Amino acid sequence: GLALGLWRRQAALAAAREDEEEKELRQRFMAPPVSGLRELRRRRRELRSRMELLIMETQAEMCRALAALDPGASFAVDTWERKEGGGGISCVLQDGEVFEKAGVNVSVVSGLLSEEAARQMRSRGKSLKAKDGKLPFCAMGVSSVIHPKNPHVPTMHFNYRYFEIEEADGTIKWWFGGGTDLTPTYLNEEDAVHFHKTLKEACDKHDPKLYPKYKKWCDDYFYIKHRGERRGIGGIFFDDLDSPSKEEVFQFVKSCAKAVVPCYIPIVKKHCHDSFTPEEKLWQQLRRGRYVEFNLLYDRGTKFGLLTPGSRIESILMSLPLTARWEYMHNPPESSKEAEILEVLRNPKDWVH
Amino acid sequence: GLALGLWRRQAALAAAREDEEEKELRQRFMAPPVSGLRELRRRRRELRSRMELLIMETQAEMCRALAALDPGASFAVDTWERKEGGGGISCVLQDGEVFEKAGVNVSVVSGLLSEEAARQMRSRGKSLKAKDGKLPFCAMGVSSVIHPKNPHVPTMHFNYRYFEIEEADGTIKWWFGGGTDLTPTYLNEEDAVHFHKTLKEACDKHDPKLYPKYKKWCDDYFYIKHRGERRGIGGIFFDDLDSPSKEEVFQFVKSCAKAVVPCYIPIVKKHCHDSFTPEEKLWQQLRRGRYVEFNLLYDRGTKFGLLTPGSRIESILMSLPLTARWEYMHNPPESSKEAEILEVLRNPKDWVH
Repeated sequence: GLALGLWRRQAALAAAREDEEEKELRQRFMAPPVSGLRELRRRRRELRSRMELLIMETQAEMCRALAALDPGASFAVDTWERKEGGGGISCVLQDGEVFEKAGVNVSVVSGLLSEEAARQMRSRGKSLKAKDGKLPFCAMGVSSVIHPKNPHVPTMHFNYRYFEIEEADGTIKWWFGGGTDLTPTYLNEEDAVHFHKTLKEACDKHDPKLYPKYKKWCDDYFYIKHRGERRGIGGIFFDDLDSPSKEEVFQFVKSCAKAVVPCYIPIVKKHCHDSFTPEEKLWQQLRRGRYVEFNLLYDRGTKFGLLTPGSRIESILMSLPLTARWEYMHNPPESSKEAEILEVLRNPKDWVH
Repeated sequence: GLALGLWRRQAALAAAREDEEEKELRQRFMAPPVSGLRELRRRRRELRSRMELLIMETQAEMCRALAALDPGASFAVDTWERKEGGGGISCVLQDGEVFEKAGVNVSVVSGLLSEEAARQMRSRGKSLKAKDGKLPFCAMGVSSVIHPKNPHVPTMHFNYRYFEIEEADGTIKWWFGGGTDLTPTYLNEEDAVHFHKTLKEACDKHDPKLYPKYKKWCDDYFYIKHRGERRGIGGIFFDDLDSPSKEEVFQFVKSCAKAVVPCYIPIVKKHCHDSFTPEEKLWQQLRRGRYVEFNLLYDRGTKFGLLTPGSRIESILMSLPLTARWEYMHNPPESSKEAEILEVLRNPKDWVH
């Protein structure tokens, strides 16, 4: 009788604790996680679960920080399912006072890799041995693009993702990828230094070699070849990270994800009430056009998304600005502020040493 | 003495006639042709020359017809050279009363095909035998996109082109391609019928089988796969045309090129003074976003242009609208005018029988 009573009391306590945790997680996140709280808790030691919690936290931190700066607006939260497996949570704030369009998206999808997606990965040097042409995969990530209204507040993008592919012999190929980068309409050196310094500090905690390497990778990746310009003033970018160990790479990715808010939010706060002219707004719109060019012509994430059957188009193209402009033969005059940023986009600078 | 005097008089007469012709051609065209008037006249029987004259004429006809409808604005005419061979003439009217952006471009380029461009052509079934990896080519064409301001005036695109590639054994592979298509913001059945009927009549002069075939090809080509929508309500599209004979295909292409003005200009005249609401303008901007998506993600001409070394980016991206818009999760209400055009973009209709 006594033993049974004790067991019952312990069970009731455990259930109450679970409810409490669930409530807490619900408050912490923008929506219930794709894999379910119970499942994530049950598998709390597995890296997949820890990564899913990290991307959920990153989404919520970013959305809250942004919403606090744009009090009139609020995030629409859409949870969606993918019939081939998995789903996601898209948070979008559109046409606010401070932000023209701010999207923060989490997706956790699984299924079989499309032939075209596998071909693209192989072209990056991966030897993926398929079983009867089928490659089961799991991909999860948080990705975000923030387009502010004020041309003195830069656009910002980040994405942190984890990939697993099961090969024919049952071995799991895994890797992380990600990055954070800034696209200003006008150059502000102080902001550029703050942004890069924050990223460098996050990287340096793990290895001082990382920041220089991923800074360069970022400059190389966000290159709009036909224009001879980068999309912005860079940041960090990396892909196919699968060493030294899953745990160490995860800890590095976690540091990067935690740096997103301190990288960007101070810059928004600093400039969101700056005055601007119609000419400055126009230049911003032209730069938005270049952003669209990069994303539709070159971005690997966008291409992978559009190639993945059953992917959610609205969440992928959330990265496009609300408005953009293309003028034939627009060339800013020499020594103008417009020419100043173009110079940096053509010849990337080192912002921290 | 007498014979020499006669010869001199004849030479003087010939020179005067040449000057006269040159003056006439200068008046007929927007700028001197890339290959030079003298050269074109000397080789007047060659198909390359006749095609270059046709694309020059088509450019001038279109520019004049458009300028007549937008009296306040005028075409900027840029002639440009490509250091690898050839050049072009770009005519652009921007921010007029009637047209937001109207571009009519002629290009006549030659050189060696890039590896990537050759790969794309081979993927379309062409067996191109290169000599030491080199494929000399000559490509010429007229291409145009007209984006009007008024949402009741549709966007229009046309392109007629001729290609020659010299293979390793010296044989010349040649083909024609082209098409004319309409992208309305709102559906107007009468306009759709007029547009398609004019194209059908041009095709029927050559073979009644052509219009149905090229109408379907157009619907298939301008498909925005990730949206499940076509870019517009179609028209005609064809590529790789190399039979029955060079002369017959040229005559067909000529008929199509001559149909451009009668296809489109009456529609502009009919609607350019229609009143419109801010909501209608907004829907136009969203459709412009889809136009950008098609052109950057799928259009073969844009891709070929961006892949060709030394190509003129401003002339290729002239096709992009002055302004475009992307809203997250924009879905027009059922039975609205916006839903009406979407229905036709999802399920193409036959406009003439």
